[in-house]
Amino acid sequence: MKRKYIAATAQLGPIAKDEPRSSAVARMIALLREAHSQGSKLVVFPELALTTFFPRWFFEDEATIDGYFETEMPNADVKPLFDAAVELNIGFYLGYAELVWQDGVKHRFNTSILVDGTGQIVGKYRKIHLPGHKEYESWRPFQHLEKRYFEHGDLGFPVFDAFGGTAGMCLCNDRRWPETFRVLGLRGAELVMLGYNTPLHYPPAPEHDHLQDFHNHLCMQAGAYANGCWVIATAKAGREEDCDLIAGSCIIAPTGEIVARTQGVGDEVALAEIDLDRCKELRDNVFNFNLHREPGDYAPICEPKYK
Amino acid sequence: MKRKYIAATAQLGPIAKDEPRSSAVARMIALLREAHSQGSKLVVFPELALTTFFPRWFFEDEATIDGYFETEMPNADVKPLFDAAVELNIGFYLGYAELVWQDGVKHRFNTSILVDGTGQIVGKYRKIHLPGHKEYESWRPFQHLEKRYFEHGDLGFPVFDAFGGTAGMCLCNDRRWPETFRVLGLRGAELVMLGYNTPLHYPPAPEHDHLQDFHNHLCMQAGAYANGCWVIATAKAGREEDCDLIAGSCIIAPTGEIVARTQGVGDEVALAEIDLDRCKELRDNVFNFNLHREPGDYAPICEPKYK
Repeated sequence: MKRKYIAATAQLGPIAKDEPRSSAVARMIALLREAHSQGSKLVVFPELALTTFFPRWFFEDEATIDGYFETEMPNADVKPLFDAAVELNIGFYLGYAELVWQDGVKHRFNTSILVDGTGQIVGKYRKIHLPGHKEYESWRPFQHLEKRYFEHGDLGFPVFDAFGGTAGMCLCNDRRWPETFRVLGLRGAELVMLGYNTPLHYPPAPEHDHLQDFHNHLCMQAGAYANGCWVIATAKAGREEDCDLIAGSCIIAPTGEIVARTQGVGDEVALAEIDLDRCKELRDNVFNFNLHREPGDYAPICEPKYK
Repeated sequence: MKRKYIAATAQLGPIAKDEPRSSAVARMIALLREAHSQGSKLVVFPELALTTFFPRWFFEDEATIDGYFETEMPNADVKPLFDAAVELNIGFYLGYAELVWQDGVKHRFNTSILVDGTGQIVGKYRKIHLPGHKEYESWRPFQHLEKRYFEHGDLGFPVFDAFGGTAGMCLCNDRRWPETFRVLGLRGAELVMLGYNTPLHYPPAPEHDHLQDFHNHLCMQAGAYANGCWVIATAKAGREEDCDLIAGSCIIAPTGEIVARTQGVGDEVALAEIDLDRCKELRDNVFNFNLHREPGDYAPICEPKYK
């Protein structure tokens, strides 16, 4: 694959609680076809793109919780998306809830995968920065129970030789932590893909609700700039089961500039030509890590916990 | 000192190569008085605020180089600034070139100090991220020889109990590195002060010249937001000896919002009320480091050098 090609963010509007995976997959296939028709070679879908954002509810029944998770990928519901990608020779990033059994123990992760134009899974990431809380909190208008339903990702921040260069992934809240982009940048990431489900209302600090779009773009533009990498970021957006989710899906150049973004809060693609060679404009100059970083002064960042 | 007070960025226009320190100090005293007349308790001056930005020239003569450095602080030239601060009971941040002898060896640093309203130096920082190059490069329209004239700062990123809370400092290029703000944030910084001299033209990547103001604000707004701290940042601005320096001095809230900024490229103050208690809006919630950071996954950031 060449290092210069058209890529797309493929935003999803809300997914209803009772909407089957087959419907979400059909919507994604429509976006995939639209992106392909405009020349795209790569499409980035949201976090947890197969179901509603279920961590907003408190469930105790294991079967109910497990019902939101995938135990294999692709499974029968998702296979049509893989098939369409192969038909069109187009790659994609997809976020979903992953259930795995290891040594007789059940593990649940908030996961994303990279799939190439031949339908092969070429990369997997499991979310590290899980936001929210673990127990039911009655004062909240809706829950954010990612710390309850997901384990801390056990794969670190890997990078993959994919889509013409070195690609990395993260998910939602990961983007707010500069360390995410920096670890990927140090590993050579030229392109970071991520999906997000971000409520407009943040119950612990509602005085910042009007800043959600600003904060969303600020942290990603800064991450792109400080590491000289492309960022493709995709929202699940709109009013989903009485919870408004921000939109603002975008493609960000290594300069930190937003070069494409969605305009609404529903299903929509936005495209831009990305040239991985542009990363050098930053990484060979102002952000030449070998010349200018000073890791001898960064020790507190890696200390086990903030004191 | 209370935790809510008016603070100022005090931008300087160009300082000519032959302009004496007494002139720069007189200009700073005028800005100090203006800020005080508007109720300010703290004023942030630029990096290397006593002379022209001398690293743009290649000098070999030791006496010429030393002539840009201060060997004590305050010295006779700078004493009037300290005296005015005491008279007005106002604190300040000041950047200057510092020459120290240790065990018979000469050391040169790019330094900043914090001075409280009684004229006491309550904090010192020596620049860690030195940009530019070490040898003369003939292809450049002007040099950027910080790596030649300054040693890497030997004080780390300290914080100080000052101005009503926990204060930290950095200088110019430090602001482009998320690690700077993060180390200060982990140490509890509620307010980060910095001065800068940033040429509008960046010879290694001139295709980004039009983005200098954007990049200046992007990295500082992201640093403020990701660490829930106030940032006061002050330029030496305008056309200094045929080199245009960006302006855009500003005060940034812990939300990342610019709440005050200068309007021109000359001597100018811009003020805002800062409330250190607002840091908690971030640090107790989305950026609660104890709850949400994952340092076990950050190891590459502290590895000795990028590989």
